[in-house]
Amino acid sequence: MAGNSFGQLFRLTTFGESHGKALGGIIDGCPAGITLDLEQIQFELNRRKPGQSAIVTQRKEPDTVEIYSGVFEGKTTGTPIGFAIHNTNQKSKDYSHIKDSYRPSHADYVYDKKYGFRDYRGGGRSSARETASRVVAGSIAKQFLSDVKIGAFVSQVGEMKLDKSYQELDFSKIESNAVRCPDTEMAQKMEEYIKSIKKEGDTIGGVITCVIQNVPIGLGEPVFDKLHARLGEAMLSINAVKGFEYGSGFAGVAMKGSEHNDAFNTDGTTKTNRSGGVQGGISNGMDIYFSVAFKPVATVLQSYETINKEGEKVTTQGKGRHDPCVVPRAVPIVEAMAALVLADYSLLARTNKI
Amino acid sequence: MAGNSFGQLFRLTTFGESHGKALGGIIDGCPAGITLDLEQIQFELNRRKPGQSAIVTQRKEPDTVEIYSGVFEGKTTGTPIGFAIHNTNQKSKDYSHIKDSYRPSHADYVYDKKYGFRDYRGGGRSSARETASRVVAGSIAKQFLSDVKIGAFVSQVGEMKLDKSYQELDFSKIESNAVRCPDTEMAQKMEEYIKSIKKEGDTIGGVITCVIQNVPIGLGEPVFDKLHARLGEAMLSINAVKGFEYGSGFAGVAMKGSEHNDAFNTDGTTKTNRSGGVQGGISNGMDIYFSVAFKPVATVLQSYETINKEGEKVTTQGKGRHDPCVVPRAVPIVEAMAALVLADYSLLARTNKI
Amino acid sequence: MAGNSFGQLFRLTTFGESHGKALGGIIDGCPAGITLDLEQIQFELNRRKPGQSAIVTQRKEPDTVEIYSGVFEGKTTGTPIGFAIHNTNQKSKDYSHIKDSYRPSHADYVYDKKYGFRDYRGGGRSSARETASRVVAGSIAKQFLSDVKIGAFVSQVGEMKLDKSYQELDFSKIESNAVRCPDTEMAQKMEEYIKSIKKEGDTIGGVITCVIQNVPIGLGEPVFDKLHARLGEAMLSINAVKGFEYGSGFAGVAMKGSEHNDAFNTDGTTKTNRSGGVQGGISNGMDIYFSVAFKPVATVLQSYETINKEGEKVTTQGKGRHDPCVVPRAVPIVEAMAALVLADYSLLARTNKI
Amino acid sequence: MAGNSFGQLFRLTTFGESHGKALGGIIDGCPAGITLDLEQIQFELNRRKPGQSAIVTQRKEPDTVEIYSGVFEGKTTGTPIGFAIHNTNQKSKDYSHIKDSYRPSHADYVYDKKYGFRDYRGGGRSSARETASRVVAGSIAKQFLSDVKIGAFVSQVGEMKLDKSYQELDFSKIESNAVRCPDTEMAQKMEEYIKSIKKEGDTIGGVITCVIQNVPIGLGEPVFDKLHARLGEAMLSINAVKGFEYGSGFAGVAMKGSEHNDAFNTDGTTKTNRSGGVQGGISNGMDIYFSVAFKPVATVLQSYETINKEGEKVTTQGKGRHDPCVVPRAVPIVEAMAALVLADYSLLARTNKI
Repeated sequence: MAGNSFGQLFRLTTFGESHGKALGGIIDGCPAGITLDLEQIQFELNRRKPGQSAIVTQRKEPDTVEIYSGVFEGKTTGTPIGFAIHNTNQKSKDYSHIKDSYRPSHADYVYDKKYGFRDYRGGGRSSARETASRVVAGSIAKQFLSDVKIGAFVSQVGEMKLDKSYQELDFSKIESNAVRCPDTEMAQKMEEYIKSIKKEGDTIGGVITCVIQNVPIGLGEPVFDKLHARLGEAMLSINAVKGFEYGSGFAGVAMKGSEHNDAFNTDGTTKTNRSGGVQGGISNGMDIYFSVAFKPVATVLQSYETINKEGEKVTTQGKGRHDPCVVPRAVPIVEAMAALVLADYSLLARTNKI
Repeated sequence: MAGNSFGQLFRLTTFGESHGKALGGIIDGCPAGITLDLEQIQFELNRRKPGQSAIVTQRKEPDTVEIYSGVFEGKTTGTPIGFAIHNTNQKSKDYSHIKDSYRPSHADYVYDKKYGFRDYRGGGRSSARETASRVVAGSIAKQFLSDVKIGAFVSQVGEMKLDKSYQELDFSKIESNAVRCPDTEMAQKMEEYIKSIKKEGDTIGGVITCVIQNVPIGLGEPVFDKLHARLGEAMLSINAVKGFEYGSGFAGVAMKGSEHNDAFNTDGTTKTNRSGGVQGGISNGMDIYFSVAFKPVATVLQSYETINKEGEKVTTQGKGRHDPCVVPRAVPIVEAMAALVLADYSLLARTNKI
Repeated sequence: MAGNSFGQLFRLTTFGESHGKALGGIIDGCPAGITLDLEQIQFELNRRKPGQSAIVTQRKEPDTVEIYSGVFEGKTTGTPIGFAIHNTNQKSKDYSHIKDSYRPSHADYVYDKKYGFRDYRGGGRSSARETASRVVAGSIAKQFLSDVKIGAFVSQVGEMKLDKSYQELDFSKIESNAVRCPDTEMAQKMEEYIKSIKKEGDTIGGVITCVIQNVPIGLGEPVFDKLHARLGEAMLSINAVKGFEYGSGFAGVAMKGSEHNDAFNTDGTTKTNRSGGVQGGISNGMDIYFSVAFKPVATVLQSYETINKEGEKVTTQGKGRHDPCVVPRAVPIVEAMAALVLADYSLLARTNKI
Repeated sequence: MAGNSFGQLFRLTTFGESHGKALGGIIDGCPAGITLDLEQIQFELNRRKPGQSAIVTQRKEPDTVEIYSGVFEGKTTGTPIGFAIHNTNQKSKDYSHIKDSYRPSHADYVYDKKYGFRDYRGGGRSSARETASRVVAGSIAKQFLSDVKIGAFVSQVGEMKLDKSYQELDFSKIESNAVRCPDTEMAQKMEEYIKSIKKEGDTIGGVITCVIQNVPIGLGEPVFDKLHARLGEAMLSINAVKGFEYGSGFAGVAMKGSEHNDAFNTDGTTKTNRSGGVQGGISNGMDIYFSVAFKPVATVLQSYETINKEGEKVTTQGKGRHDPCVVPRAVPIVEAMAALVLADYSLLARTNKI
C-alpha cells in the first residue's frame, strides 16, 4: 500500500527508476483466457517512446518489453503477469548538475526530504519513464476490454485550443501527425508552435481529451470509488497533470439545472450527455469523456538559479534531451490509465448482484 | 472494497440511505490519544445541515451524531470509532413520483441497472445525505491534524467568479454569510443570485476553493497515490462534482516552463507556488490549494419529461425541498474529505524511513 | 487497514467495546438481491448469547441486532449493511479490580503498551463480545451462500476427545445439547466435566471441528490468499484460538505420500479426502473440514497474584460471570467466520476467467 | 487483490511459473535507508536451493537473484524493489505425463477448473519454486528488522519428533546438518529416515518450529489482523502446509486456565510463556514460537492410477527429481514469511498513537 499499486481486482504494481537496471511491473488479477497480442503491446509502447518525432525528446531508448509469466501458449493464465523493460541507454549520462542541486518544480527536493536521500540519476523514480510500465499494463487491459473503445487526443497546446466537440472529430487522424491532434490543420499549428518553444529552450503545457465508447452500464462503486473519481485519480497520478474534468466539467458550473440535465430517450440513453457518461458515479452507457491538464515540463534548457542540499544558491544550466511539450507522448498513457480503471471496474461489477 | 471505504490507514467506511433508519460509519485506524471535542464535530455537522439559511433546502433534520465506540474518558483509544446519525424526518414523505420514474441526471436509472432494483426513498444511497458521515469523520481527522489548517470557501456561483487569489481574502469572513464566500460584497451578490434561481425553481452550479496550510513536507505516496491524486479522487467522490484542479490547474497549460517553475528560496520554500504545494505527488511544505467544480443540482422544481422503468415517457413535476445551489453546504464536506486525505497520508508518511 | 476489517469483496468492518454504548459493523460488498431472513440472524446471535445454558456465563444481554441500512423491502440492495447491537446490561458493573491491574494472559497489558491507555471496562475491545458482530455478518453471508452447508461442533473438551470422523456423526444432534457436540453420550460427559470445572472456579479449553459441504470447485486465490490460509487466519482471529489444522492436519505429517495422496474417481471427486477439500489453495469440491484449538479462558474465579500499571505486585480475586469453557458458544462464531471467507471467495472467483 | 500480494505496508507481490522465463517480485513499502547486504539475500536463497544435499531434490538451478530497482548506492531508497530470478534449467524437461493427466493431491485439477486451462510445465504457478521470491523478500525484511532474531528448525519428520523445548536447543547447530534440526543426534536419525523413504520412491511429512526473539511489545492489529492470525495465514500459504499452532497450541486445550495462565513478573515479562509471545493478538515482548505442519510431498516416484482431462483412468509413473521430504528446504521459507509479517506489523505499529 505504499503507492505503487493501482486497481483492486485488475491490479498493477510497478517498479523501476529512470536509470536503474530495469523497470516493469506485475499485473495481478488479469482474468485467464485472453489471447494476448504482444505486438500490440509493443505498438502502444512505441507511441510513448522517445525519439519518435521532431517535437519529442531525442533520447534513444528501445523500450522493449519482456513478459516473464502469466501467459502460456498465447493466452493469459490467470496468474500474475510479470514484465520488465531493461534500460540500455543510461550509462553515459552526466548527472552531476542534478546530484548537487534541486531543480525547480521537480520532485528532487521532496524526495530528499521524504526518504532522506534519492536516486538522482535521471530523476529516479519520479521520472515519467515509469509510465512505460503503465502503457504495457494498459495495453493488456485494453485487450481484455475488447468491446470498449478508448481514444485520447491532444485538444490544447498552450493557448491553442481545439474548439470542436469530440463528435465533430475524425479519430482516425490522431496518429497521422506528431502532435496526436485529430484536426490536421490545428495539429500543424500546434506542431510549429512546439518547435518554436523548443528553439527557445522552453516548454509548454497542454490538454488531452479522452473518449471511452461502448462502456457497459453499471461500472462504478459509490460512494467513494465512483467511476469518475477513480478516473480522476488515475489521470492525476500521471506526471505533470494539474487538473481533471469530465462531462460538462468546470464549464458546467455556470449552467442552470434545467439546462444541464440530460433528458432520457425511451431506451435509457440520453438526448444530451453533459453527465459525461457517468451518473452518481456509475456508467450509464453513454460515451465517457474527460479532459486532463498537463503543466509545462519543468526542465527548461536555460540557465536558472536554484539551491543545493546545503541551502546555498547555485546557478545551473538545464541540459539533456527533454520534451518541449509532454502531451503528444502522454496520449497513450492517458489511454492506458483509463483502460486500467475500466478493466478493474468491469471485474468489480461482476460482484454486484446474486 | 465495494466502494464505501476511504483511506488506507485512517480509514472511513460509511453506511446509510437517505431515508433509512440511520446513517453513519466506522473510522478504523484513528491513532489513540486524541482528545476529542464532540461539540466541534456537531459544529461541523451543523455547517452542512439543511435549513441553516434561506438559500439552502428547508428540510428539518437535527443531524445529531452519536459516538458508539473508540472513545473513552474523552480520548480516542485506537480502536474503531463507530457512529450513527438517526433519521427522524423521513416518515411522511411521498416518493411515488420517484419510485416509478427516472429523474434526469440522477442516479436512479444506473442504480436500477447495476443492482436490479433500488431504495428509491429520497435517492437512497445516492443522496448527498451520506456526506454527513464524511463530515463527522473529517472533523475527527481535523482534530488529529491539529497543526494543519484547512479552509474552504465558495469562489464561484454560476458565472459570478471571485477574481482574487486566496492570499487577498479574509478567511475569517467565510462563516459570516450564508454563501460561505470570504468576500462580503461578492457573497451578497451570490446570495441574491441564488435566491433568484430558487424562485425560478431552478438550480445553479459553483466552485469551491480549498487551502491547506502548515502541511508537513513529505506527504504523498508516488507513483500512483500521489497526494494531489488522492485529493482529486476525494473531491470527485462528492456528489455533483465535475472537476478538480490544483495549483496552476487548467490555466497552467498555457504557461511556459520558464514562467511556471517555482524558484527556490534558500530555506527550501518557493518564491511562487504554481505547484500548489505538491511536487512529484509529495507535499513540499507550501500551501496546498485546489478548486472543485460542482454542477447544478439535478432536482429542479419544474415540470419535465422523463421515462419510467418500462421505458415509457412520463411527465413529472419536481417537488420537495431541495438546494438551489449546493456549494454553500458543500464547503464543510470539501474540508472533511481534505482532512481525511491528510490524516491518512500523515500516518503513511511515518513509514517512509527506517 | 487497522485490523478491524475482514474480507476483500464481501467485507466486514466491526466496531464496539464490551461496555460501550453499542457494538456493530458494516458489511460492504454484499451482493444485491438476497432475500434476508432477519429472524435467522437473531437465531444465530442467540446461539452465541450468554445465559443460554448452565455451562456458559450467566450474564444477561439481549443481544438484539438492529439493521440500519442496505436492506429494502426485505432484500439486500448492494449498498453497505450497517448494524448495531446496543449494550444494555453494562452499567452496574464494578471494574476497579481490572482498572488497576493486568489480568494474566489477557490483553490488558499489551493494550496499555500499544495505545498508551485502554478502555478497561469488561476488557474493552479485546472482549469476545465483539464476535457478536461477526455472527450477524456471518448469518448474512450464510444466506448469500444458500447452497453451501456449514456445520461446526465441539469435538474436544479438555482431554475428552471425540474419536469419530465427522462422517459418522449426526449433525442434527449438535443443537440438542448445551455443549454442541453431536455425540449425545460424549456431550453429556463433556457437560458434566465443564460443570465440575466451573465449580472449581477454573476453566478448560476445547476444540471445534467445522465441515463445509457443497463448496463449488475453484474457490481460493493462490499463492498467498489460498482458501485454507484465509480460513486459518479467520479462525485464529477468534478470541482464545491457539491452533488451526485442515484435512489431515498435524497427523498428516507422519504419513507417507503414497498413503496420503487422494486418488481420483473418474468424475473428479477423490476416493479419500486427506486434502480436506482444498488442493493448492483452491477448493476441489470435496468437503472442507478443519479443527480449531481454543485455550482455557484466562479469567479464573480464584485468587491470583499479578502486577499493576506501576509494576507493583498485587493480589486479585477473579470475579464476575464468565464462561468455564468457551467452545459451546464459539460454535456459531466459527461458522460465521467460515461463511465470511466463503462469501468473499465466491465473489473473487467470479473474476477468474474472461 | 488476486492473491499474489502479501502484507499491507511492507508488501510483497510475486510472479512467475516454475518453468517460465523468470520469477520474482516487487516489495513496495520497504523503508528508505536500509543498508542492504546482497550476499545475505543470496545466502538465504541458497538455503532453499535444490541440490544442496543428498536428501533434497537433485535439480540444478542456480537461483541467482537480480535486483532491478529500489536500491541505490547500497541502500534502499523507499521506492519499490523489483527483482527477478531467471530460470535456466527448464528447457529439456518432459512434461507430457503431467500435461494429459491430473496428479493426485496436486493442484493440476483445480487450476484447470478455476482458470479453464493451466501452464502444466513443472506445476506452473502452483510449484513451490515460487517461494524463492518469498525468500528474497524475507531476507530484505530480516535486514530491516535488524534487532529481531528469527530462527526456524525441523522439529519432526514422520513420527520422529524432537521432544525438547526450544530453550534446550542449540540454534547454532541448525545449519550444521542437512535436515536443519538443532539436535545433532536426532538430525542424523531423521536424515537416515529420509534417505530410506527416498529409496522407496516415497515421501514423508514433517514439522517446522519457529522462534522469534526480541520482538517489540505492541505488534498486532486486532480484532482481525491479530499478529498470530497473520503469522498463521503466512505459514498456511506455504506449499504443503496443513496446520499451524502457536504457544501452547493444540496441547493447550487440555489445560485448565489456572495452569495455562502466564503470571507476570514485575517488569511485565511473564514467568511462563504458554501465550507464545502474543496476547489478544498483540506481541507482549516474550518469545514468539509456533509450529507448522507439512504434509508429505504429493509427487511419489511410483506407479499410480489417476484420471486425465477427459475423466478417463490412466496409469502414470511418477518421475523427475523431487524432494522426499520438504521440511529441510522449507526452513528458510518459514523464516522469510515470519520476517515479512514482522516487518509489516512493525510499520503498522508506528501509527497506533498520536
